Amino acid sequence: MLDNGNVLLTDVTGRDGFQMEDWVETEDKISIINEIIAAGVRRIEATSFVSPRAVPQLKDAKKVIEHLHRENVSIIALIPNVKGAEFALESNVDEVNVVVSVSETHNKKNVNKTVDESITGIADIYQLMESNGKKVNVGLATTFGCPFEGLYEVGRVHEVIKKLTAKGLDRFMLADTTGMANPLQVSRFVKRLKDDFPDVDLSLHLHNTRGMGLANVLAGYDAGIRSFDASLGGIGGCPFAPGATGNVALEDVAHMFDQMNIPIDPDLNKLLAAARKLEKVLGYKLPGQVMKAGLSTDLHQA
Amino acid sequence: MLDNGNVLLTDVTGRDGFQMEDWVETEDKISIINEIIAAGVRRIEATSFVSPRAVPQLKDAKKVIEHLHRENVSIIALIPNVKGAEFALESNVDEVNVVVSVSETHNKKNVNKTVDESITGIADIYQLMESNGKKVNVGLATTFGCPFEGLYEVGRVHEVIKKLTAKGLDRFMLADTTGMANPLQVSRFVKRLKDDFPDVDLSLHLHNTRGMGLANVLAGYDAGIRSFDASLGGIGGCPFAPGATGNVALEDVAHMFDQMNIPIDPDLNKLLAAARKLEKVLGYKLPGQVMKAGLSTDLHQA
Repeated sequence: MLDNGNVLLTDVTGRDGFQMEDWVETEDKISIINEIIAAGVRRIEATSFVSPRAVPQLKDAKKVIEHLHRENVSIIALIPNVKGAEFALESNVDEVNVVVSVSETHNKKNVNKTVDESITGIADIYQLMESNGKKVNVGLATTFGCPFEGLYEVGRVHEVIKKLTAKGLDRFMLADTTGMANPLQVSRFVKRLKDDFPDVDLSLHLHNTRGMGLANVLAGYDAGIRSFDASLGGIGGCPFAPGATGNVALEDVAHMFDQMNIPIDPDLNKLLAAARKLEKVLGYKLPGQVMKAGLSTDLHQA
Repeated sequence: MLDNGNVLLTDVTGRDGFQMEDWVETEDKISIINEIIAAGVRRIEATSFVSPRAVPQLKDAKKVIEHLHRENVSIIALIPNVKGAEFALESNVDEVNVVVSVSETHNKKNVNKTVDESITGIADIYQLMESNGKKVNVGLATTFGCPFEGLYEVGRVHEVIKKLTAKGLDRFMLADTTGMANPLQVSRFVKRLKDDFPDVDLSLHLHNTRGMGLANVLAGYDAGIRSFDASLGGIGGCPFAPGATGNVALEDVAHMFDQMNIPIDPDLNKLLAAARKLEKVLGYKLPGQVMKAGLSTDLHQA
């Protein structure tokens, strides 16, 4: 996909969002994701080819992808291993996301592997996908801190990226998995990693767990990031903070950039309509703000 | 109150918060505000001396102020006119807040006066309070846009401040009354107004209506603001956006600054305890995020 100069927003509703919900009907998933595509979002992490035992919420991955309207959009699936990569290839996704935690403790707890074991697995996936002409994006979970280990210096992130670039990987999502990042830290981490690895592609995957979601998006933008993950309505959540919000809300991020005259791809009103539909499907009040308040430019009668 | 170099946080729970609620028992109001004071917050907009017919929620203004623990804290009441100022003096508040909208339409709808009529009224209040050695802070409602008139240029704000400084006023809260501000605009407005009026005291009163609350706080801080209003748990709301959140949450703002190594006065854990108590008093889930997720530095067991 060519860079058109706009901020690139990647919707992760289908994966990071629906994974945190009770079962969402396949037809509803397809309908919501197709609305997001129709709104003009150009990258979609639609689902995950992971064990249905581990994540039953996404056991319909193949069917979901089959029914997406794949025009002017890059469809991404999260995969945990080579077997998942093979499923993703069968579904002809455009890209795959893989994950490794910067924190050893978090990686062990998440996938029962050391960080180095995960990196070896990612290298195997990369070989397979690369030979099939597909991009591999590495999500660096707990980039900005680990709920078990706490906050740490950017050097920890540097080390993991260094090992991965040695294997050929060059696309990384800096993920604030449990919403621990603050704007100063985002700014410092991004600047340092951009300096250290000028040839890699860096994006931000931020959560609004502690209310700093859009402040962190802004700090990342100011530090040079032009690619952000977000979920419709801000769904997603955090297993360590029951009741806390999830990912930054796609439509709130899009609205902020639009208000700041920073070009984006999606149509805001279409995104809001999709978010309100999602709220009906899920049956509870979503954390997204603009879906409740309307655009800043919406006028009221005096 | 001497400037100790910390960011100055002013809690507006008692006024902007409780005004938007159904009746809150006087004892609960006193207890919550005293907890906020005990947490170390040094300025409190505790209530309003406004007609009990207009705002029955705050008809207990005198009693609330009587029972506050007034040590190391400046107690502020909002007042609409000279009569309110006299009540405020009887209660021996430390400062008063007055309000005028930048938007003619909003001012007319809010207080049925032209902006110039409001400014004349504020000048009368200022005479009275000044002669009693009390500070008067002017809240400039709809600084960043009006729900009826839309967004406008900073020149509109400049004109209102100019007229007020001509009357002797020199303390202004730039208020994003219905949450229309974005970070670029906050940055531009603040820089311009600081340049135009180097001798006035500017603070920010921001709402999180469209999710940009903390991003706007950050933009204001970066542009040189060191004084911010906020409400416990983010209560407050917006009459034009049912279901939208209110003021930026005091504990979320405090937490962000603390995480960024910017010194603040209050104790974060005490603020969180107060916010959780407020949630019990009000009986619904408050919009504050850190009260649900805990501090970024809280560790979990692996």
